[in-house]
Amino acid sequence: MTNQTLILIQCRDAVGLVARIANTVANHRLNIVTMREYVDEAAGRFYVRVVCAGKAEQHDRLISELDAALPEGATIVVNPPQQKRLAVLVTKEYHCLGDIIVRYFFKTLGAELCCVVGNHEDLRAFTERFDIPFHYVSHAGMSTEAFESEIARVLAPYKPDYLVLAKFMRILSPAFVSQYPGRIINIHHSFLPAFVGANPYKQAHARGVKLIGATAHFVTNDLDEGPIIAQDIKPVNHTFTVKDMVRAGKEVEKSVLSKALSLVIEDRVIISGNRTVVFE
Amino acid sequence: MTNQTLILIQCRDAVGLVARIANTVANHRLNIVTMREYVDEAAGRFYVRVVCAGKAEQHDRLISELDAALPEGATIVVNPPQQKRLAVLVTKEYHCLGDIIVRYFFKTLGAELCCVVGNHEDLRAFTERFDIPFHYVSHAGMSTEAFESEIARVLAPYKPDYLVLAKFMRILSPAFVSQYPGRIINIHHSFLPAFVGANPYKQAHARGVKLIGATAHFVTNDLDEGPIIAQDIKPVNHTFTVKDMVRAGKEVEKSVLSKALSLVIEDRVIISGNRTVVFE
Amino acid sequence: MTNQTLILIQCRDAVGLVARIANTVANHRLNIVTMREYVDEAAGRFYVRVVCAGKAEQHDRLISELDAALPEGATIVVNPPQQKRLAVLVTKEYHCLGDIIVRYFFKTLGAELCCVVGNHEDLRAFTERFDIPFHYVSHAGMSTEAFESEIARVLAPYKPDYLVLAKFMRILSPAFVSQYPGRIINIHHSFLPAFVGANPYKQAHARGVKLIGATAHFVTNDLDEGPIIAQDIKPVNHTFTVKDMVRAGKEVEKSVLSKALSLVIEDRVIISGNRTVVFE
Amino acid sequence: MTNQTLILIQCRDAVGLVARIANTVANHRLNIVTMREYVDEAAGRFYVRVVCAGKAEQHDRLISELDAALPEGATIVVNPPQQKRLAVLVTKEYHCLGDIIVRYFFKTLGAELCCVVGNHEDLRAFTERFDIPFHYVSHAGMSTEAFESEIARVLAPYKPDYLVLAKFMRILSPAFVSQYPGRIINIHHSFLPAFVGANPYKQAHARGVKLIGATAHFVTNDLDEGPIIAQDIKPVNHTFTVKDMVRAGKEVEKSVLSKALSLVIEDRVIISGNRTVVFE
Repeated sequence: MTNQTLILIQCRDAVGLVARIANTVANHRLNIVTMREYVDEAAGRFYVRVVCAGKAEQHDRLISELDAALPEGATIVVNPPQQKRLAVLVTKEYHCLGDIIVRYFFKTLGAELCCVVGNHEDLRAFTERFDIPFHYVSHAGMSTEAFESEIARVLAPYKPDYLVLAKFMRILSPAFVSQYPGRIINIHHSFLPAFVGANPYKQAHARGVKLIGATAHFVTNDLDEGPIIAQDIKPVNHTFTVKDMVRAGKEVEKSVLSKALSLVIEDRVIISGNRTVVFE
Repeated sequence: MTNQTLILIQCRDAVGLVARIANTVANHRLNIVTMREYVDEAAGRFYVRVVCAGKAEQHDRLISELDAALPEGATIVVNPPQQKRLAVLVTKEYHCLGDIIVRYFFKTLGAELCCVVGNHEDLRAFTERFDIPFHYVSHAGMSTEAFESEIARVLAPYKPDYLVLAKFMRILSPAFVSQYPGRIINIHHSFLPAFVGANPYKQAHARGVKLIGATAHFVTNDLDEGPIIAQDIKPVNHTFTVKDMVRAGKEVEKSVLSKALSLVIEDRVIISGNRTVVFE
Repeated sequence: MTNQTLILIQCRDAVGLVARIANTVANHRLNIVTMREYVDEAAGRFYVRVVCAGKAEQHDRLISELDAALPEGATIVVNPPQQKRLAVLVTKEYHCLGDIIVRYFFKTLGAELCCVVGNHEDLRAFTERFDIPFHYVSHAGMSTEAFESEIARVLAPYKPDYLVLAKFMRILSPAFVSQYPGRIINIHHSFLPAFVGANPYKQAHARGVKLIGATAHFVTNDLDEGPIIAQDIKPVNHTFTVKDMVRAGKEVEKSVLSKALSLVIEDRVIISGNRTVVFE
Repeated sequence: MTNQTLILIQCRDAVGLVARIANTVANHRLNIVTMREYVDEAAGRFYVRVVCAGKAEQHDRLISELDAALPEGATIVVNPPQQKRLAVLVTKEYHCLGDIIVRYFFKTLGAELCCVVGNHEDLRAFTERFDIPFHYVSHAGMSTEAFESEIARVLAPYKPDYLVLAKFMRILSPAFVSQYPGRIINIHHSFLPAFVGANPYKQAHARGVKLIGATAHFVTNDLDEGPIIAQDIKPVNHTFTVKDMVRAGKEVEKSVLSKALSLVIEDRVIISGNRTVVFE
């Protein structure tokens, strides 16, 4: 992306928006390489992601010209930070964290992994092998409020752009979530909205399902109810025990979270109410 | 299957069952071509499907010898009817019925399609083009009881082995279902247990899902809760309207029901409580 | 699409194309609903598909203004025929034709099915049940030239927009293909480019593959080498005989051809050399 | 598997084999938990995988009794080594090795990872972070013979059960391969048999495919031609550059190799000529 300009816009829909945007961009001598837009006709909202060849020389002037050209209240982002900072929250399961750290080590994550916070110590040794800071914040004997303040305190110096809940098994309070609006990503161990809540694999086994799935979503105040970013499934059959389902499920969780992170890191996801617009 | 013997058994688990079955079969000079068995260790149940080369010459003696060799209360089926008789119940949507009828016309359904019953007239013309009897039984102004008795009366002379609910949009009462135990197959327009009940695609759209699915299952007394036979999904994205989701969903429904019917018709499915053992 | 305007353009790439197109469209008081464009940077080609709310009142003026705004040699299509005319060529296998005809009967094909041409009589009865003309053109004892002229003669009065080779088992000559440039769609019984040519399932079985696939593509002069429109696969395993693979393969062929036809019928496919740009 | 007995048999097919095996097993007071058998009727071969509850107390007597009960020349394995020893050969790409090492570190690989051999130094640092021996064996300026002897010499003290070619970009000679018959597993960067050989993603891009795949297979003397263990695919589209295809392909390679390794490690794969029987 070094010699490109990325523009993300959402606003009220109106006639001629693409023309106004394209004109403004062309006036800056930027050539549109890909433009993906979407109009949610029911909601009357317009979304666009524009990649231009060439680096915008007058970044601020481009934004103010776009703002003048668009309906009031438009959200305009030009060249969001390339190196986003991620903090990963974990409990005991390694599969998602392992995948993230290996990508990070080999410089294909596309983001900065600034720290790992665990409410158990299980993943410290692995994390520290890669010289990534690991912070243990136990929830034992603490109120939710105290536990979450401690997490916030630990995270603060890293200034993370996104929190990634990589099998973090505590539910975060609305108070905590509201500090990171649209910036917390969770991997849910189920094909939402089936099997919401605890023990989804036990539920899935009892129900005799033939597929199991996983869902990566932004976290909002409602448990397991935020905007979905990515989902996938794997086939299972009657011979799968609950344990086999967990194992198969972990593979899906890992790949779905990985896909969701790529989409977010590459600025391909726009949150639209309780849904996402994903420009893959 | 003309020169083969098919044996289906389920019983309490015990030591040496495979040996006892294999011996009994070998004594009849039948060679086991494929044998698929499964032990549900939690439930202590044993399931087996055996295909032998050669036609059992002494059918009844084979059954009684197997019965003597197995724990009390075993269910033993030798050579279930090859040409099962299906009755299909429909409302207005054509996609599942169309697929079934085309296969039947070209003799690849593997079963006899004895009649179609609709609570609307929409699919009569299509059905009758293939000289298949179509019976219109309206639910309008009728009690559930009267409506279902009329369906039962219409079906009776056909002596169907299975009822296929191919997008039949009425819920059948426990009283009706109990007349066809384990013999009613439904295609549900959702990836169960997500979006149980009406308007699943509207629910799925509002929730912003990235996959939609369909589930074929046996019908029991609980709505959408019988043993699952087959499931599949298709990817969708933010550009899909509810109508697009319905269209994509129909493709999944059609292929999932088709797969479930093949499995049932080929005697590959054994019902085990609220789950199925599927020997694919 | 009744109150929409669809615009398809391909041309040499240049700075500001999206702006020029969007301006021209806005001048006609059309609001862009979705715009999908793609620049093949290696080839220096620009492709765009624009859907506008509102019907272009001055169709010819819109085209000439677009032409003036774009690089020389642009291909511009505004509102291609909504009701495309399809002719289907078959041999003996029914599965693809069956799917097409059922959709057509229930008015969800999105195109006119003007006739079926078979080099065998096997599918006549089925076709004629739907009052669709079936023409038998035997290749027996005929030169390729004579056989193909007869097909062309039969097709001529129907003026088909597209020929669909729905398991038509004869290879068409370059001379014939050149009469329908970019207008012949074939379903290939394999995951191209694996197993090119005859008996792919026999080859796939001998090779012990774990997946089988199908490919829908435009026909060019090279056998099985035209631009790919859609592909899909199904898992298989060691228990599959060649016959089982054929059966599984037919399911994939049917669904892949169906998908490819939808894409073409909805004007979502642009041919670009030996590749396709598909705006799904 | 600690309190189980695993039996793997392949032999000439004959009447009553399942009975003979089941009897022999029952005489040892072992209860069959799962039995998967397959008869390749064309080849006249019989394959079976039996899992019994209970540990065979007289291991050698069980084998000799099975041998006596089966046709001459049967291959019988009872309780193959639970902790198989793997050596991994790599070049520069990390994705497959990363996945294997993370599983190994968290004790879910199910095998011993005894060493990594690289013909480049790129993956040394990563490997050594986990205290796994890394051996650099350069091919530069060496004959194939000399290069391979050096690899064999390095591997010898580890006594590996399997060699895993995790993106090892050198072709091994028949002489080397014959030292590890049926014990070398390769991940091929393509959906075999499409795009055999070098640069498959470049080929795939030029061909405009809509799916890319990967194949894990045993290595035999013919390049990319050994028995296939597992395959999978991912969808791609016209916007994918060769680089994007490589990235997507790596995800498939990683998951396919991981699946193949699990199958082999759990003794679920039997090689049968140029095909595999996989008892999943």
